[in-house]
Amino acid sequence: MKISVIVTLKKEVLDPQGKVIQQTLNNMGIKNVNEVRQGKYFEIEINEKDPNKAKDSAEDICKKLLTNSIVENYKIIS
Amino acid sequence: MKISVIVTLKKEVLDPQGKVIQQTLNNMGIKNVNEVRQGKYFEIEINEKDPNKAKDSAEDICKKLLTNSIVENYKIIS
Repeated sequence: MKISVIVTLKKEVLDPQGKVIQQTLNNMGIKNVNEVRQGKYFEIEINEKDPNKAKDSAEDICKKLLTNSIVENYKIIS
Repeated sequence: MKISVIVTLKKEVLDPQGKVIQQTLNNMGIKNVNEVRQGKYFEIEINEKDPNKAKDSAEDICKKLLTNSIVENYKIIS
């Protein structure tokens, strides 16, 4: 089954890429954007029918490879 | 209000980055992953209280800046 995961920078970590997007939008005339923060999204197709086991696998993958726990958080969204 | 957006490669577009993650997991001994696809995630803080107007703004931003519509799709998730 397919598990979707979001990895985001922690709140206290600066996100220059998001800042550039926000400034670019401003330069394009879109002035109502206060902040943009960018993260990563992963769709992981796991060979496992039990949803709980699949989520456990996804969590393991997040911890071991996808997330740098010092500066990032992960969230399994479905 | 805060709008969350996911930008993903279209199904027919190759995702070498996702492939490398899948191979790396395999090399790490995690063998039950059939496919990984990577996308981008954005949190956009829009200075707008009406949820519909905020979503319209987010859609506009996705079309004008965040998404390359030739190879990518976007989805407003909240």
